[in-house]
Amino acid sequence: MGVVVVAAGSGTRLGAERPKAFVELSGMTLLEHALRGVVATAGVDEVIVVVPADLVAGAEAVAAPMTGPTGPTLQVVPGGAERTDSVAAGLAALSGAVRIVLVHDAARCLTPVVVFERVLEALDGGAAGAVPGVPVVDTIKVIDGEGLVTGTPSRDSLRAVQTPQGFRREVLEQAHACAVAATDDAALVEALGHPVLVVEGDHRSLKITTPEDLERAERLLRLTAG
Amino acid sequence: MGVVVVAAGSGTRLGAERPKAFVELSGMTLLEHALRGVVATAGVDEVIVVVPADLVAGAEAVAAPMTGPTGPTLQVVPGGAERTDSVAAGLAALSGAVRIVLVHDAARCLTPVVVFERVLEALDGGAAGAVPGVPVVDTIKVIDGEGLVTGTPSRDSLRAVQTPQGFRREVLEQAHACAVAATDDAALVEALGHPVLVVEGDHRSLKITTPEDLERAERLLRLTAG
Repeated sequence: MGVVVVAAGSGTRLGAERPKAFVELSGMTLLEHALRGVVATAGVDEVIVVVPADLVAGAEAVAAPMTGPTGPTLQVVPGGAERTDSVAAGLAALSGAVRIVLVHDAARCLTPVVVFERVLEALDGGAAGAVPGVPVVDTIKVIDGEGLVTGTPSRDSLRAVQTPQGFRREVLEQAHACAVAATDDAALVEALGHPVLVVEGDHRSLKITTPEDLERAERLLRLTAG
Repeated sequence: MGVVVVAAGSGTRLGAERPKAFVELSGMTLLEHALRGVVATAGVDEVIVVVPADLVAGAEAVAAPMTGPTGPTLQVVPGGAERTDSVAAGLAALSGAVRIVLVHDAARCLTPVVVFERVLEALDGGAAGAVPGVPVVDTIKVIDGEGLVTGTPSRDSLRAVQTPQGFRREVLEQAHACAVAATDDAALVEALGHPVLVVEGDHRSLKITTPEDLERAERLLRLTAG
């Protein structure tokens, strides 16, 4: 099983001088936090970290020590202009033996191992794709181009999705071969008619985008340590 | 024009010993913050605050000083078991002269006046209902009872709605006459086929539910003051 870790964020919205993956959280970069969860997940054979081309060497220095002699293999590869390109670059770097792929966002650096496990379990159960999701707190309205409400879906039927998103490799490759821009890989797979299952996500799997998110992640780490 | 301010929350999730409306934020109760925005909005003639029956006297003591001699009239009335019941109680307390009603959640105590104005402007423009909404950051999936994805709506078409929700009074009364439980008043109005417009909301209009929300509200107040 392979994991593609996409670490392409600029860090600008974090107010950071450095790319997001290299921003520190409690003395460790976001990339290290993210990889810690990945390598702690049973069954991971290969990890591909995708970063902008000029950060490959820096990411290798950070990532290489994360896997021990018995751990998964790890490669850092340059990504593309869009997220879809970066995922495709990661997919291309996996060996032919890999049948199941998880795509994970390095900005969700505190995702607990149990979430990886739930996604893998759903794929083991036969799903073509599986993504973690959490209940939606807000009332969501669907609007048309003029701002008129066209529907209020029941909140019970909605999930805000996170990563890792897991797929049978051939399904994700097929989806990327047909890909246009999409907010997530699962949407590409769904568009081809493959069933995608939503499994239980976790509030700790927040995506770090703003300084406020970073503070929240620091609080979560303190709670876990305490 | 009348505003029904629903202040029914228990404060339990805030870890507070007192009902949510009486929790303090920078030295003022949430109810006072909420009423400050309401009374600062041009065109408000009547304000009805709805609280649990045992809090009517306490809410009157807090709320009464908020409106000056030239301000709107203000009444505190007891609510019901469900939010829908509380809104109905608020509606019933408005005088016959009121043609436009805004329903506002006291837990959204920092809603800027401009949001009230946008809702009123949409109603002036002929909408039967108008609600503030903000873009949705997460990818949202619609799932069936088994957790299978049935759709991934475009994020551009989604809005997370806030309050105040505004309506022509007769439309809201008609909706409440037919009401079952709903996550928001607009959904009741939509179910009757009336057009509801989503106007631009504001991030300051967060709903205070958890201690983290309260901290965020405190930061927002500091930014405004600074």
